[in-house]
Amino acid sequence: MEKHMNILIAHCEVEARNFLSKIESKKPLFICTIGNTETAKIPEISAAGKYPEITDYTPAADVELLFYGECKCIDGVPVTPDGIPTPALITRSALTLADIPVFVVSGGLRVKPYAPFIDLGGEPGEDIRTGRAVKNVEEVIRRAEVVGSNFSKAADYLVVGESVPGGTTTALGVLLAMGVDARLKVSSSMPVNPHSLKIRVVEEGLKAAGVEFGDLKSDPVGAIASVGDPMIAAFSGLVLGAASKVPVLMAGGTQMAAVLSVVRALRAEVLGNVAIGTTRWIIQDESSDIRGLVSQICDVPVLAANLNFSESEIEGLKAYERGVVKEGVGAGGASIAAFLKTGGKVSSKVLLREIEENYRKLIG
Amino acid sequence: MEKHMNILIAHCEVEARNFLSKIESKKPLFICTIGNTETAKIPEISAAGKYPEITDYTPAADVELLFYGECKCIDGVPVTPDGIPTPALITRSALTLADIPVFVVSGGLRVKPYAPFIDLGGEPGEDIRTGRAVKNVEEVIRRAEVVGSNFSKAADYLVVGESVPGGTTTALGVLLAMGVDARLKVSSSMPVNPHSLKIRVVEEGLKAAGVEFGDLKSDPVGAIASVGDPMIAAFSGLVLGAASKVPVLMAGGTQMAAVLSVVRALRAEVLGNVAIGTTRWIIQDESSDIRGLVSQICDVPVLAANLNFSESEIEGLKAYERGVVKEGVGAGGASIAAFLKTGGKVSSKVLLREIEENYRKLIG
Repeated sequence: MEKHMNILIAHCEVEARNFLSKIESKKPLFICTIGNTETAKIPEISAAGKYPEITDYTPAADVELLFYGECKCIDGVPVTPDGIPTPALITRSALTLADIPVFVVSGGLRVKPYAPFIDLGGEPGEDIRTGRAVKNVEEVIRRAEVVGSNFSKAADYLVVGESVPGGTTTALGVLLAMGVDARLKVSSSMPVNPHSLKIRVVEEGLKAAGVEFGDLKSDPVGAIASVGDPMIAAFSGLVLGAASKVPVLMAGGTQMAAVLSVVRALRAEVLGNVAIGTTRWIIQDESSDIRGLVSQICDVPVLAANLNFSESEIEGLKAYERGVVKEGVGAGGASIAAFLKTGGKVSSKVLLREIEENYRKLIG
Repeated sequence: MEKHMNILIAHCEVEARNFLSKIESKKPLFICTIGNTETAKIPEISAAGKYPEITDYTPAADVELLFYGECKCIDGVPVTPDGIPTPALITRSALTLADIPVFVVSGGLRVKPYAPFIDLGGEPGEDIRTGRAVKNVEEVIRRAEVVGSNFSKAADYLVVGESVPGGTTTALGVLLAMGVDARLKVSSSMPVNPHSLKIRVVEEGLKAAGVEFGDLKSDPVGAIASVGDPMIAAFSGLVLGAASKVPVLMAGGTQMAAVLSVVRALRAEVLGNVAIGTTRWIIQDESSDIRGLVSQICDVPVLAANLNFSESEIEGLKAYERGVVKEGVGAGGASIAAFLKTGGKVSSKVLLREIEENYRKLIG
C-alpha cells in the first residue's frame, strides 16, 4: 500500500508506482484553480467559510495565503464554522518548503484576490438549482487548455489544485448528469456529510435543466453548464492542455472525479498521464468513496499524502483527524510534490512542523 | 560587433557576450506585457492601429495572434495606417518555431483579449496630459513581482516583451520625469518620428503633474503614476521579481529605457542579470538613440536580432526595412531566444520564411 511512508497508494497500485517513477525528483509547477458558485450559500452545504456569505471570499483568501503567507481580502484566514483553518495552510507550507512555483487560474470569481491570477473570461457560477449554473463553459475550457499547454513546456509535471466552496455538490451534479453513480460518494468539508441535502439540491438542478441521470454522458460542457461550477471547466481545460505532454497530478478529493469524467468525455487518451493526489483523510473517509467514483470513470492512480495531525499540539490542526476539512487548495497533491521534489527531506513530519509554525504566525 | 550572424551586439560587448553565454541553449519562457493608455489616441502619436480609436484593440489582438496564430477581437491583424502588419507576426513565428512557452500579463486594459492573461488588478491608463496617467502603480508592480518570481522558478531565463500603443510617448514621460535626457531619443513605429508632438504631450503632462525634469528621479512609482503607462509598471515588477534569480531579456526598443530607469531606482542590483533584446531596425534607427538612453541609466547589454526583410517578396514585410514599426510585442527578443534555443537551426532566414508563410495565411 505504501511507496514510502509519506505517500500512500489508494488505487491502481501498478499504475501508481509507474506514475510516481515518472515524477520522482522532477520539477513540478503548482496551479490553484479557483471559482465561485452561489451553490455554496445554501445553508449547511459548505464548511469553507464561517457563514454562507463569506464563502465568496474563500478562494481569493486561499490564494492570497499561497502567495503571501497571509490573506488580504479578509482578516485572518478562511475557517470552518467551528474555526478550523483552511487547507491552504498545508499547501502554502508544502510549496514554500520545496520551492515550487505557484500560479492561480480563475474559472469565474465573485471576489477577486489581491494577487495575480490568470483570467479565462469566465463568470462566477449560479446556484445549480436554477439548472443554468455556468456560462461560457466551452470558452473557459478552451482558454484553460492554452494555459495548460504552455505550462506543460515550463515544468516536468503539473500539480493542479482547486478552491471552490460548495464544490462537492456541483461535482455531484456533474457526475450524476454524466451517469456516474455518485450518490453518497462525494466527500464533505464537514464532519457529518450532508449527503441528502446535496442530493436534493442536485436533483432540483437536474430537474430545472430537464436532465436525467446520465443524459449528459457525452456532453460534459452541458453538464457543467447545467449543474457544475466554473472551477471544473477551468481545471478540465488545464488537464486537456497539459496531460498529452507532461504528467498531471490532479490535487483534490472527490471533486476530481467530476474533472475526470469531463476529461474522459472530451479526450480520454490523455488520462494515461494523470493521477489523483489527495490526503489520507479523504482515502480513509467513511462518508465518501473516491475509489468507487474513480473506478466508474477511468482507473487512474489515487495517491494520498500521509499527513497525520494527531500528535499536533494545535487543536485547529488536530481537528483534521476528526474528519473536518479533509482536503482542498491542492493540499494533498502539493504535499506529495514537496515530498518527491526534495527526495523525502520534506517529510510528513517536517511538513507538520512548518504548518504549525505558519499556523502560529497567522492565528497565534 | 556580432556574436553570430543572427545576433548583433549593439552596446556593452563584454557584458553582452557574458549574458549570451548564460542563456545559450537554455530554456526561455516568453511573457508579453500589455496595457492601454488613452495617450495612444492623440492624433499622429501612434502607428499601432489603422486609426487612433482602434489602438484600444491592438494589445488584445497581438496576444491573440501569439496564442492562436490569428486575432479574435478584430478581423485580420493589427496594422499601421499604411497597412503594415504588427510585429506580433514575428514574435508568433519565432515562438512557435522554437516551441517557447508564452504567457500574457496585463498592466491594465481597455479591451481584454479573447485569450488567457494574468490580471494584476491594474486599470487602463489615462492620457498623460492629465498628469494622472496610471492608478494603483505600486500594487501592480508588487503583483507583477510575485509573477516574475514564480516564473523564474519555471524557466532558465525570461524574455519579456510588450504591446502598448502610444508606449514611446509614455516612456518619454517617465524618462524625463526621472531625469533621463530622452528628447529626440525615443523611437517611433512611424517612418517619420513625431518627436516634437511627443515632447509637447509629455511637457503638458509634466506641467499638469507639477513635475519638472528629474524631479521624480527617486520616485519611479510617481513617475509612472503621473506620465507613464500600465505596461511599464507591470514590466518593471516582472523584472524585479525574476532578475535576482534568472537572466531577463527585456524584449523591446527604447521603451525599455523607461523600465530600466524604474528598476534601477527600486533595486539597481538586479540589473547585472538583465539585457535588452531588440531588432536591427531599432539599433540602426537614426531618429532614435537606444544606446544614448541606456548609457544614461545603467550600462546593460543591448542585443539585436539581425532580421532582414529586404529580400522578402511581401511588400508589407519589406516596409520594415524603411523604418516602419521597427519593434514591438517582443519581436526582437523572441527572435534572439529562438535563435539561441535552437542552436541556430532557427536562423534569421528560416524565421523570415516562417513569417512570410504566416503572413500569407493571415493576410493572403
